[in-house]
Amino acid sequence: MKDSRRDFLKKSMLAAAGALLIPELAKAVVQEQAAVHAPKITLKKDAVIMLQGDSITDAGRDRANNIANSMPMLGSGYSLFIASQLLNTHAAKQPKVYNRGISGNKVYQLRERWEAECLAFFPDVVSILIGVNDYWHTLTGGYKGTAEVYENDYRNLLAYTKEKLPNVQFVICEPFALKGGSAIEEQRWFPMFDEYRRIAKKLAGEFNAVFVPFQSGFDAAVKQAPARYWAGDGVHPDLPGRQLMAEMWMEATGLK
Amino acid sequence: MKDSRRDFLKKSMLAAAGALLIPELAKAVVQEQAAVHAPKITLKKDAVIMLQGDSITDAGRDRANNIANSMPMLGSGYSLFIASQLLNTHAAKQPKVYNRGISGNKVYQLRERWEAECLAFFPDVVSILIGVNDYWHTLTGGYKGTAEVYENDYRNLLAYTKEKLPNVQFVICEPFALKGGSAIEEQRWFPMFDEYRRIAKKLAGEFNAVFVPFQSGFDAAVKQAPARYWAGDGVHPDLPGRQLMAEMWMEATGLK
Repeated sequence: MKDSRRDFLKKSMLAAAGALLIPELAKAVVQEQAAVHAPKITLKKDAVIMLQGDSITDAGRDRANNIANSMPMLGSGYSLFIASQLLNTHAAKQPKVYNRGISGNKVYQLRERWEAECLAFFPDVVSILIGVNDYWHTLTGGYKGTAEVYENDYRNLLAYTKEKLPNVQFVICEPFALKGGSAIEEQRWFPMFDEYRRIAKKLAGEFNAVFVPFQSGFDAAVKQAPARYWAGDGVHPDLPGRQLMAEMWMEATGLK
Repeated sequence: MKDSRRDFLKKSMLAAAGALLIPELAKAVVQEQAAVHAPKITLKKDAVIMLQGDSITDAGRDRANNIANSMPMLGSGYSLFIASQLLNTHAAKQPKVYNRGISGNKVYQLRERWEAECLAFFPDVVSILIGVNDYWHTLTGGYKGTAEVYENDYRNLLAYTKEKLPNVQFVICEPFALKGGSAIEEQRWFPMFDEYRRIAKKLAGEFNAVFVPFQSGFDAAVKQAPARYWAGDGVHPDLPGRQLMAEMWMEATGLK
């Protein structure tokens, strides 16, 4: 058993007993899930960080607002809490953070708006959280896409981005769903949804991206407080879950 | 020279060189400013945390909202970022955070609404940031109160609170003003305003309160990015300054 695995199991037990603070748990989860040669993000002065995704990223932002780091543009989701930490922790670098999540998006819809809403910003870091709708909308919206479509579209999007911006650093966030959330009917979600998580992790490996293991983070966190404390519907995190996501993102990228 | 002082000076030099991350700097500042027997906050299960103050605390909250931990009630200031950290870090305790700051308040105006907007919540922790208007409004609003009035009113407020809630734990936040902010005319603010900071620190000692040295934190932070990065007008922090305040609050209370 490798050391990080032993350490993780020990911390999981402490967490279940309520004896471990969540940031310590987030750190342990990131270490447990990280690949051996997992990359970290290098932040240069005035770095542009683009946060992309669906409603979890969007989170009520003002879509007409183009001002880097402004709170209305950042919305009230995990993007805001990543931005607040980046701007404070790395003040000397004065990073520029943009949120361009759009509610309801699946991976092919990112591609449709990618030039204008991602590439045009010439981001140094592109962080993507996409996948929950790629599965969910097959249950509720008559969407016909499969896990294979998700994988191919996602890979093409990343390859295209890398072609246009050869020095871009990717952060690939694990899509997640919390059992016990009001929108999650377990028999309809699992194990099918797990495939989307595996694809995201595989693509992170292919593109030398940082991988943020959100599902593992929430799975550990529900040992301390119930799923509905973290995300009422199991899909859209509430305030504690938003901060947990930011914690995990900062840990995984090495920017904490 | 005591160890914490030596350590602080070393960290200040690193900070000025941009080689220290702001959370490390915040921690060093808190350690440097802490009294020898500085208390820490003990958080019990379901603890009620009340954040009180003026516009810096208020920060656009929905004043009709009474739901603990809800984002509209918390507003978009440092209160939000303290709440997000408390709710995540201490999830096992499921704390209840309330923001009841009111824009424009001076210390006597806290007293006028104290029963309904503080005591009635039976808070376990009362955090207060008050004082900038007690000075500012003498310059701009025709207010006649002096530092002595501030001190007496503040002491009476704390004594009254302690009388009604003998087990309450106080967090007294240092009022602050950033030289270089658009609203801060240096000759009109200093050294007069410094007296309000000294009084807040003195009262923290008298009431065995946690003291959060915001002014020292901002003074250190402006070595890495200019005052207007942290707070455009020098009074109301922007996003990076809000996160810095939350960092300092979490460090000073021992809840990080």
